[in-house]
Amino acid sequence: MEQTIKREETTLKVDEIKKYDKQYNLHSWSAQSKLNPMVITKAEGIYFWDEKGKRYYDMSSQLVNLNIGYGNKKVIEAIKDQAEKLAFTGPGNAIDVRSELAKKVIEIAPDNMGKVFFTLGGADSNENAIKMARMVTGKYKIFSRYRSYHGSTFGAANLTGEPRRYTCEPGIPGFVKFFDPYVYQEKIEFKSEEEASKYYVNKLREQITYEGADTVAAIVLETVTGSNGVIIPPKGYLEGVRALCDEFNIIMICDEVMAGWGRTGEWFACNNWNVKPDIITFAKGVTCGYVPLGGVIVSKEIAKHFDDNVLMCGLTYSAHPIGCAAGCATIDVYKEEKLIENSREMGKVLGAELEKLKAKHASVGDVRYIGLFSAVELVRNKETREPMVPYGKDPEKVMSKLVGMLKEKGFSTYSHESCILVAPPLIIKENEIKEAMAILDEVLDYADTLTH
Amino acid sequence: MEQTIKREETTLKVDEIKKYDKQYNLHSWSAQSKLNPMVITKAEGIYFWDEKGKRYYDMSSQLVNLNIGYGNKKVIEAIKDQAEKLAFTGPGNAIDVRSELAKKVIEIAPDNMGKVFFTLGGADSNENAIKMARMVTGKYKIFSRYRSYHGSTFGAANLTGEPRRYTCEPGIPGFVKFFDPYVYQEKIEFKSEEEASKYYVNKLREQITYEGADTVAAIVLETVTGSNGVIIPPKGYLEGVRALCDEFNIIMICDEVMAGWGRTGEWFACNNWNVKPDIITFAKGVTCGYVPLGGVIVSKEIAKHFDDNVLMCGLTYSAHPIGCAAGCATIDVYKEEKLIENSREMGKVLGAELEKLKAKHASVGDVRYIGLFSAVELVRNKETREPMVPYGKDPEKVMSKLVGMLKEKGFSTYSHESCILVAPPLIIKENEIKEAMAILDEVLDYADTLTH
Ligand SMILES: Cc1ncc(COP(=O)(O)O)c(C=O)c1O
Ligand SMILES: Cc1ncc(COP(=O)(O)O)c(C=O)c1O
Repeated sequence: MEQTIKREETTLKVDEIKKYDKQYNLHSWSAQSKLNPMVITKAEGIYFWDEKGKRYYDMSSQLVNLNIGYGNKKVIEAIKDQAEKLAFTGPGNAIDVRSELAKKVIEIAPDNMGKVFFTLGGADSNENAIKMARMVTGKYKIFSRYRSYHGSTFGAANLTGEPRRYTCEPGIPGFVKFFDPYVYQEKIEFKSEEEASKYYVNKLREQITYEGADTVAAIVLETVTGSNGVIIPPKGYLEGVRALCDEFNIIMICDEVMAGWGRTGEWFACNNWNVKPDIITFAKGVTCGYVPLGGVIVSKEIAKHFDDNVLMCGLTYSAHPIGCAAGCATIDVYKEEKLIENSREMGKVLGAELEKLKAKHASVGDVRYIGLFSAVELVRNKETREPMVPYGKDPEKVMSKLVGMLKEKGFSTYSHESCILVAPPLIIKENEIKEAMAILDEVLDYADTLTH
Repeated sequence: MEQTIKREETTLKVDEIKKYDKQYNLHSWSAQSKLNPMVITKAEGIYFWDEKGKRYYDMSSQLVNLNIGYGNKKVIEAIKDQAEKLAFTGPGNAIDVRSELAKKVIEIAPDNMGKVFFTLGGADSNENAIKMARMVTGKYKIFSRYRSYHGSTFGAANLTGEPRRYTCEPGIPGFVKFFDPYVYQEKIEFKSEEEASKYYVNKLREQITYEGADTVAAIVLETVTGSNGVIIPPKGYLEGVRALCDEFNIIMICDEVMAGWGRTGEWFACNNWNVKPDIITFAKGVTCGYVPLGGVIVSKEIAKHFDDNVLMCGLTYSAHPIGCAAGCATIDVYKEEKLIENSREMGKVLGAELEKLKAKHASVGDVRYIGLFSAVELVRNKETREPMVPYGKDPEKVMSKLVGMLKEKGFSTYSHESCILVAPPLIIKENEIKEAMAILDEVLDYADTLTH
């Protein structure tokens, strides 16, 4: 029985979709001949279905963006309405949804925030943030961390610390990397989180001093490191970085592209600590990807700078009308469906399940979780903490095998280095978490066989 | 009488839209305190209306993206359908509209083209194109031109030659600028277009040699320079650049973000000459901005390279489902409404009007046009060709005054240096061109008073 997918005029059969995809599309981060993409035919709530009618738990919310899940009626209606009313006008003009969304974003942002500049995605939000930091400070060096991903355009890729940066090298002068508080694999044993934070912040202070504090425009960090393994800052770390920024007149930029919008159980991840960044960059959760949208939230102080100084930033689709309409509706959904609260509540359920896996499986070295943002870090040996796969390599394709086994059993997610990401839509229910985590439990039995 | 603009739940009054816009939004390329944005309340065809109900001819198609004009039913329906069906799935999956749009794009692209990588806008299409050129050639230098705008993210801004580049400096190593064939203001008199082309191509050859031909990965050019004054390559120029690229194994990248999609009377501007680039970047016209979408079209040869080599490019919203659906519908509209042909036909009408203005007005030094892509270059003196405003400055705000006078009379467009852009939607009719150009004629009377 051949499935077909209807559009107004054309009807591509599944095999044609596959054929044309292979023939005409370039897919991200891949050698194309090795690809065999799923054909997605249906999606609803936390589930999607492939061409064979098989259902998957979307345990990564696609690329950690589908916080409200698939098929949300309110957001769909907002998109349809705005498409009818005014699909496009240039970013220089004022329109209702543009004003409304900016107001809504500032209302939920930390109270030092003043204005927002809307972009299209995560990369360009970071690009614009570092441009602004340079304009405001007149300085040019930008600090960011090794275990980070900030996007793949040149500026964002030069912020990025992991190998996806290499294609944008030789790099931009003045981009400096420092190490993250990746306590689990640190060779030092810390007595407490606070002690760890002190160590990292002091190291950073030393590096700023050696780079020349009066050349440093900004420190950029993922508030909670996402793709590179859900690394959660130890107590006092972010506050320590904030203090350094204050001391040296450096702009603190929190990249909340992945961690923002309820993912960690707060509107913005920084709310989990006692810290207010100068700039927050966002994308993903603001519209959950229903329409591309990103943005840069700046403090009142920075906003004031641009009252009389030209903001040298711009893109044709800045503050896109349909993106803004989708953003307004998405924020309403978070509020009405209490998704921030649900992320916090269900985060506890998820955390308990993760702890059980850690206790049970020889291959589970660490589990890290905050809200519905979590990672399972696999090791060959719990004592030595030897990673499941060596850095930047996976010669035996262990991790893709594990992810493949999960998918086979209906649990869709992805991995990075030795970590498996678990970050379901924020609408997930307790029983769904338990059902899905039972699948992970099974697959980890196989991972256990790889330990020694 | 207070106008109101309805949304499902909220109703912002015009004064609230203005107030919140001023309070919460950051607008591009501006000092914010100097702004007084129009509130757009309605748009249809080639017209839009402000909050006072005043109608404007959109003679710049907003940012030269609204080729099909406002309110196109077919594209709106496609957006609504796709929003209902599947607003989002990650770029790793295959879906009908993604396959269909890739196929459609390759079918209308030059016949050497093989595959397409979809992005969100113009900047990131250029970012990805230069990354690909570096990956394919293993070389790192990138040539581009001074009178160019390629976007405002770090990579695209470093490609850009004009002052919008400066905020992304100190620049990326290996980005080299050369001069464009801006014949009108050249200090040399050429006997023919061919002779001019020979001069420019030889200069470029010399520069490539001095930079070291085997370090040059790509030459990036706007096929027809857009924002910087609709500079049309003289006969033989692009063919000459193509020959240099072949000789030195350099990737030829044509930025058709503004010039593509019928703007010049051809699907892609390069079709106007006997030249096939290796890569075409696009955005704007592919969806006309109804939904953000951009892309990189690569030759079969380059596509083949990425069969077995990893494409180190990626963004969360690559090949966005609603963007692809809008793109499919937009291409149908170009075909069904014969807009490429209309651009060519109406381009003749526009050209004739422009020539009349040039003959009549002392301030009109040059008019340049191809399809519905044109600029009026103003001078203080036709003999000396002294520009209306000096480079990078406009102390008396002459150009913004002229653009303001046009707007006052219902002719909306923008200027750059001494040029006024005229690039209406491709659906424009003969009488509409004549009506609008009569407004420009009037305003040029004032410009004439500034000549000497
Ligand atoms: C923390 C972070 N920043 C930036 C980005 C880049 O966002 P985009 O893919 O929309 O360019 C990502 C994407 O995963 C991210 O996780
Ligand atoms: C030729 C050209 N390239 C690139 C861009 C950048 O496109 P975007 O504003 O979508 O980033 C533009 C924008 O005007 C353009 O005209």
